[in-house]
Amino acid sequence: MKVKFVDVANMARWIQREGVENIMVGMVDYLERDYKRWEKFDKIPRVASHTPFGVIELMPTSDGEEYSFKYVNGHPSNPARGFQTVTAFGVLADVDNGYPTFQAEMTLLTALRTAATSAMVAKHLARQDSTRMAMIGAGSQAEFQALAFRGVLGIDHITIYDIDPQAIEKFKRNLEPLGFSITACSSTDEAVIGADIITTCTADKAQNQILATRHVAPGVHLNAVGGDCPGKTELEEGILDISKVFVEFPEQTRIEGEIQQKPADFPVVEFWKVLTGAESGRDNPEQITLFDDVGFAINDFSALRYLRDSVKGTELEVDIDLIADPEDPKDLFSLVANVPSLI
Amino acid sequence: MKVKFVDVANMARWIQREGVENIMVGMVDYLERDYKRWEKFDKIPRVASHTPFGVIELMPTSDGEEYSFKYVNGHPSNPARGFQTVTAFGVLADVDNGYPTFQAEMTLLTALRTAATSAMVAKHLARQDSTRMAMIGAGSQAEFQALAFRGVLGIDHITIYDIDPQAIEKFKRNLEPLGFSITACSSTDEAVIGADIITTCTADKAQNQILATRHVAPGVHLNAVGGDCPGKTELEEGILDISKVFVEFPEQTRIEGEIQQKPADFPVVEFWKVLTGAESGRDNPEQITLFDDVGFAINDFSALRYLRDSVKGTELEVDIDLIADPEDPKDLFSLVANVPSLI
Repeated sequence: MKVKFVDVANMARWIQREGVENIMVGMVDYLERDYKRWEKFDKIPRVASHTPFGVIELMPTSDGEEYSFKYVNGHPSNPARGFQTVTAFGVLADVDNGYPTFQAEMTLLTALRTAATSAMVAKHLARQDSTRMAMIGAGSQAEFQALAFRGVLGIDHITIYDIDPQAIEKFKRNLEPLGFSITACSSTDEAVIGADIITTCTADKAQNQILATRHVAPGVHLNAVGGDCPGKTELEEGILDISKVFVEFPEQTRIEGEIQQKPADFPVVEFWKVLTGAESGRDNPEQITLFDDVGFAINDFSALRYLRDSVKGTELEVDIDLIADPEDPKDLFSLVANVPSLI
Repeated sequence: MKVKFVDVANMARWIQREGVENIMVGMVDYLERDYKRWEKFDKIPRVASHTPFGVIELMPTSDGEEYSFKYVNGHPSNPARGFQTVTAFGVLADVDNGYPTFQAEMTLLTALRTAATSAMVAKHLARQDSTRMAMIGAGSQAEFQALAFRGVLGIDHITIYDIDPQAIEKFKRNLEPLGFSITACSSTDEAVIGADIITTCTADKAQNQILATRHVAPGVHLNAVGGDCPGKTELEEGILDISKVFVEFPEQTRIEGEIQQKPADFPVVEFWKVLTGAESGRDNPEQITLFDDVGFAINDFSALRYLRDSVKGTELEVDIDLIADPEDPKDLFSLVANVPSLI
């Protein structure tokens, strides 16, 4: 019984072949369809193993027909040692018989699905006349966010600030050739001037104030991506008081998101309810909308299925021999009985 | 960054090369060393997704230096449809940077580690003069149990009963050539006559009574393997009342094991404490000792590390391209920037 596998090289080939912006549009469609049937999913907060170095998490979910999980780590001190902050891989399985069917690298795919999730939410919550995005943080996720917002919302004016000037240079080097208008800033105060959307995406595992209340003007949509762990936040608490706050899965976000700074009954809107019409999104052009993104298992479920469907039957998926499958299912031992011809 | 991978074919080659009984001895050594440092591990009940068809579980643990998890399903109706009841794979990762280091098929490895765990426990709890084992259930796990008990305890007289006569025939066909003395029985009553050890290992997802109180004579060690899921038990409740009950991780066993039939304060001994000397094992030759086995994540941790160490540097492990690793860790996008020469 073979499992289909997309490794890092084939994932990179797929992204190059399809283009990030096209993938964003397609993935947002998968995400929206899954978010609209939110209640069908088996949902739990992700299962985290915390150490002083970082966290390793498992993120399972199921719609009753397919099961998915992602392995993902978060190690803020990794880049200084030459490693990625976040690496990941994921698996789809058939609920009917429990067999895995598909495995993929998800370091790149997580970058794509995080950006697609941000864009899906902003598409429904940002002001329709939004043209400029301020980005705080120019790490691994930054280019994917920018491409998602251009692909899905048409945003192509970006102001960016990072404490690491080389990261900003890298961001410009990667995206200016693709036609973006990018302004490198020397402070957050400078970056947020005139922004319709603010994206925060930094990696430090600490209670930081990447963004202060004074930075958030009326009408802004705030896409808060980096605060996603107990003890890891990016926003000054006061921002939560002046915003309408949208989340993925409250049971997880209250542990990991910006709202960990608030009591357990702090009011939030589950974003899927905006898609089904059960709750309103942005109520007026002056309202500040805040997506307190931590990343939820259903996002990975959608992304893995989109990838699986897109690469199906192409040379980008290969077989791996992951599942023992003896002819007589009760005779697993036959696979190791000492008869060389069987092997 | 490559991850080492042992697929099904190489796992089968490894088992043939080493021999199941030798692996059992080596794996019991790894298990005992890990059980003796039980308190060092990050421990949670496994994370289960139940459906009417079966269950899919993730089983993570960590000793603070290495992390492991296993994906495993349990679908009792699978064999009737030509599928394995249990399939599995697992991963080791480095806690320091969160990177996966090793992946392996674990359908075969789970069979080995379950048998090794049974043998480890019986080695400390069964009467020293034990020579005969009764087995109830002749499914996929049966041969591995028999080889573990011979390899570790020297048991080579086996009586066996299964409701499926063909499964018994398969068991005899696989093991008689290896020198076992096997008596096929037509009932549990017949199989347990004169047994020093009774192993129950059946797969039905129901509250069954594979074994009744009358079947368990004084002095028996009872190795109860099959009851491992809410609503899935094998023993008549009265057996628990006449036995000293040993478990892996009580928080999980109370949900999944035979003791789910009992109140939450039903007395059990954590087996690791027998190994450290904190608790006594068997107190006298007449006592009935009962290992209420459900399978815990540390068992998989030990098994994966034993495998990894055993195949290290051999042709049985291959590289898979699972972890994206750009030269500049903040420049993940460089892997997909449209420069064909990079790919």
